[in-house]
Amino acid sequence: MQQRIASGKDAAQADPAKPAGGGPQIILGIDPSLRGTGYGVIDTAQAIPATLSQGTIRCPADWPLSRCMRKISETLEDILQKTRPTIAAVEGLFYAQNIRTALVMGQARGAALATLARAELDVFEIAPRKVKQAIVGYGAAQKEAVAKMVQTRLALAKLPEPDAADALAIALTYAQSIDSPLPDPSIKPV
Amino acid sequence: MQQRIASGKDAAQADPAKPAGGGPQIILGIDPSLRGTGYGVIDTAQAIPATLSQGTIRCPADWPLSRCMRKISETLEDILQKTRPTIAAVEGLFYAQNIRTALVMGQARGAALATLARAELDVFEIAPRKVKQAIVGYGAAQKEAVAKMVQTRLALAKLPEPDAADALAIALTYAQSIDSPLPDPSIKPV
Repeated sequence: MQQRIASGKDAAQADPAKPAGGGPQIILGIDPSLRGTGYGVIDTAQAIPATLSQGTIRCPADWPLSRCMRKISETLEDILQKTRPTIAAVEGLFYAQNIRTALVMGQARGAALATLARAELDVFEIAPRKVKQAIVGYGAAQKEAVAKMVQTRLALAKLPEPDAADALAIALTYAQSIDSPLPDPSIKPV
Repeated sequence: MQQRIASGKDAAQADPAKPAGGGPQIILGIDPSLRGTGYGVIDTAQAIPATLSQGTIRCPADWPLSRCMRKISETLEDILQKTRPTIAAVEGLFYAQNIRTALVMGQARGAALATLARAELDVFEIAPRKVKQAIVGYGAAQKEAVAKMVQTRLALAKLPEPDAADALAIALTYAQSIDSPLPDPSIKPV
């Protein structure tokens, strides 16, 4: 037993890319964007994870950027306090059409990451194709297919909104990876 | 006189791009970047503004992104508490070589903006060319020319580090704009 604990600890230290295994986790998934940041928190204690919180942090188009950053940060902090996640996962290297879009998306992501890191949460990023692959079975799945599968997997009464569904899909993908015996190169600390 | 005040007030309400005039300000300038975010705080009460704080928030290359976001946010919060700025200015639409760079720069900027906005600071962004124009006299000035002029204008004993100099130049440019009778389209709320 002592040996198992010790080797588990060593493995976690030696390879930060390997998510911490063993025991249920409360996982916060986030899909950051300026006007609609999706979030979802699941508790993996049961075979069908419990959905503790999910939704979209909306910022109207006429809000200045800094007000959006503030709302994203404050809402996430509120969610952290209410649901006490043990780990967070965000969408990894994501698609941006152009430099302008990349700057805007990057800013929403930076506001989110700063908030998570200040709460001392370990944050992992998961490649978008990996999320679709893990949830729907193929990497080019449509958003609606992801939402429907998330609804089924979490036994939700209603179809989640698209951004919240993406965030829940990220959390579910992370949950699946915990039990995987091998480190997954598409999931890494950020 | 009454008319002037009234119209001044109307103008300020009608045009949020016009910085608040009247009286000295404590201005925080920031030049956000992942590995070296420059900052500088000046107090405009005297003809030669007092430099309350300046420096670079460094994040080593081997730190994960979220740890950098945390350091940027926590250091800025510390600076806000120590120097109590009345306004903040960041570099505006900035140059990014490619989408990857834009994402990284955007994230540092998002971490900074979230921190400023949560402290209820109004934040303005200033076009980079405008800063060089205001400080050195031409928009394509080299970094060292900016640093030397900042040193002179603030009567600093030592040449400021490049990132801190850029941040102080942003603060100085904002200070100049306060006394300008017309709204400057290259300075706008963010």
